[in-house]
Parts: sequence; C-alpha cells; structure tokens
Amino acid sequence: MRPLLGILGGMGPLATADFLTKLVQETPANHDQEHIPYLAYCVPQIPDRPAAILHNGESPLPYMLKGITTLRQGGATAIAIACNTAHHWFDDLERLGELPIIHIADAACAELARLNITTGAVGLLSTDGTVAAGFFQQRLSARGLKCVISTPEAQTTLVKPAIDAVKAGQLAHAHTLAIAAVQQLASAGAQAIILACTETPLAIEFADHSLHAHCIDATRALARACVAWHQKHS
Amino acid sequence: MRPLLGILGGMGPLATADFLTKLVQETPANHDQEHIPYLAYCVPQIPDRPAAILHNGESPLPYMLKGITTLRQGGATAIAIACNTAHHWFDDLERLGELPIIHIADAACAELARLNITTGAVGLLSTDGTVAAGFFQQRLSARGLKCVISTPEAQTTLVKPAIDAVKAGQLAHAHTLAIAAVQQLASAGAQAIILACTETPLAIEFADHSLHAHCIDATRALARACVAWHQKHS
Repeated sequence: MRPLLGILGGMGPLATADFLTKLVQETPANHDQEHIPYLAYCVPQIPDRPAAILHNGESPLPYMLKGITTLRQGGATAIAIACNTAHHWFDDLERLGELPIIHIADAACAELARLNITTGAVGLLSTDGTVAAGFFQQRLSARGLKCVISTPEAQTTLVKPAIDAVKAGQLAHAHTLAIAAVQQLASAGAQAIILACTETPLAIEFADHSLHAHCIDATRALARACVAWHQKHS
Repeated sequence: MRPLLGILGGMGPLATADFLTKLVQETPANHDQEHIPYLAYCVPQIPDRPAAILHNGESPLPYMLKGITTLRQGGATAIAIACNTAHHWFDDLERLGELPIIHIADAACAELARLNITTGAVGLLSTDGTVAAGFFQQRLSARGLKCVISTPEAQTTLVKPAIDAVKAGQLAHAHTLAIAAVQQLASAGAQAIILACTETPLAIEFADHSLHAHCIDATRALARACVAWHQKHS
C-alpha cells in the first residue's frame, strides 16, 4: 500500500497551515511529485482540549476519532496530529482510530537528541493541558533531562494569551507574550525550550529574536518525523 | 448539511499550504471554532497540467477526479482547487465530481471588480497551460478588459523557471524571476497583474517590492471566495 499521511488538524487552523508548510519545507524535493502525499482533516468545531483535561469539559475524543476515521477511509496509512495537547488522547486515538500515529513529543525528543542535549534542563512552552497531561515530562525524564515549566502566573498572563492571540490572528501581540514566556523559562535554567503548542512557533517566529536559537519547534520536529516515516514506507 | 470545504491541492504542495494559510487569514475569526472546516487532498503524484494541455501529455483528470471523489466521500460539500491551470478541466471536474467548484478565475475577477478595475489592460502571470486554456482571457474579455500575456521568451526564461523554483523551494531565485516577468507585463501596459499560477504569489511575496501594489493574488482571491461561500451556507 502506498503511504498516505493523514493529518488531523484544525487545532488550530493557522497551526495546521504552519505544519503543512513545514512538511513541504522539510521534504527533500525538486519537483511536486517528490513531495509527501497527504489528506488533511481540519475541522475546528471541536471542544477545547485543555478545558477537557483540566476542567472536565466536553471530550474532544469523539471529534478527533471522526477525523481519523475520515482520513482512514480516504486512504491514510498513518496519522500526524498538528496539536500537542491532543496527544493526551494518543493511546485511545491510536487504538480506536486503527492507524499508527507519529507522536509529536517523540519527534521533539528526537530533535533534542540530534542537538546533543542529553543532560540539564529543558523548558516546556505549552498549554496547561499539555503540562497536566505529562507526556512531555515523562519522555524528558526517561532521557535524564529535567523539565522546566512556566509558573502558574506566566501560564495565565503570557502563555495562554499568546496562544489565544495566534488563534485570533494577532501574531505581533502573540510574539511579545511568547518571547516573555520563553525568557522566563530560560531564566529558570532551561538550556533549550520546546515550543510544545502548535500555536507557539507562529508567535515566536513572527519576528527575529536572539532566543530563537534556544527554541525547539515541535511542529517542525513532527514534520521531520513524517518525512522519515514517508522515506521508510516508500 | 453543514458546509465542509473540499480542497484539491498538491499542485504544488507549497502553493496548497499558501492557500490554506490565506484561507485562515481571510476568515473573520477570533477562535478556532469560527474557522472554516475543510478536508484537503494533497497528492502531488499527478501528471503535469501544462504538459497535458500543450503537448498531449498524460491527462491529470482521472487523478483530480480521484481527489474530488475522496473529498466528497469524506463529506465535502463544495470544492476549491489550489491550482489555476487545473481549471482547464473545470467542466469535467464539476460534472463528474458531482460537487460545485468555486472557480479561481471568477474569484480573481471579483477582486478586479472590488478594486474598480473595469477598463484597460490586465496582465496574466501564469503557466503556458493556463494561457492556452483561455479561461482567464474569456472572463476578462467579458468584462471589457484587455488581457496582456507574457512574451513566449518571457514564459520560457522567466515565468516557467520561477514556478519551477518555487516547486523546488528556491523562493529567492523565484522572486527575482517573477518580479522581472511582472515588470514586463506592466511595461506592456497592464495596470494590474493577476498572479494566476498558485506558485507565483509565493515568488512575488518572498520579498518587498513596489510592484506588489499592482498584483492581484488569485490564491487569496480564491480564499476570499471560499469565505463568502462558507458564510452563505452556514
């Protein structure tokens, strides 16, 4: 069976387009025909993921499963999810969706390994939901890395407003907030900061900044993992 | 039935991501849930469109129909095609695909009307295939507008290499070539130039240039037409 990447997007829509752009950028190709074939399901009418994890809000799981089912019926042979927080439901999505899923946190950790970051502390710029889900902390711990998270105050006054600003298309405002959050993580000892919410790379990359060099873009890492998956299955 | 936009992409892949980004940018939304739900089929393993039109190459029609069928079976209620040249097959695609298609040239002409361009000459930056297909010229003529196309030499030395450079990810090189092609169309009397190949906005927008103000981005125009379609059907 020819590989067809199924992309579960819409969480949020600009982050999905950013992932698709990075998927193209990371693919070694000189012609259209060398690029990765994909089917993308981008239906943003889905319950908020952090609210479901933290406040017992409506579960997005049935909505995500509908997306994966649509992708599988359309011929997808593996899934990438352009949302970090959604990976809280990874096990259920893979089991009930009946397709392998390329895990974004595994992809980000592969980037850490590639950069020879094997000791010390790594920062996590993510939603409250991803922090509470714990799958990044578990992976970092398994690699002997400490995990630095934002203070509750920074989550409330910087991280969440930055993510919401991206979702509202206000990238300049998002940039200011996200850079401040990254600075706080760096001050707390993080030698590298994983941009572990798919809105955050859009905020950080909106303008040049010296802190870029310390950021690891989980979205781009997922794109690279998808390219590796495609090369393996072609 | 809730509207779900089906996007036929892959021609080429970066142009598809550009269209999806512009679709988000053009949607008035403050939250994820207000964005347009879509399903995108991006399978670039498809015969070259200009070669099929001009040199009797293999037809891309069955490949595009497979894409539209996949989108329809996935729940799509209308189609947008992120490739100008593919609209050569518009009638067959709409009839055999059994879904309405939002025509990119109609969208671009709506932009001309919005900008009050109702007389004079309009340039066409497009593939040889789109020029030969004639659907832009017909629409401009029906509006009383002259159509200026690139010289055969410019098509060979500027336009096609610019498009190929975008497909190979070489945007700086593509920019230089595409700006030269736009300059030639402006010198030939075009007061506005339609970027009528989905690779060309990526080339033009790569860097600032005074000619931007004279360019009409057919990709963004299609995104706006999709937003209008969604508002009408929601």
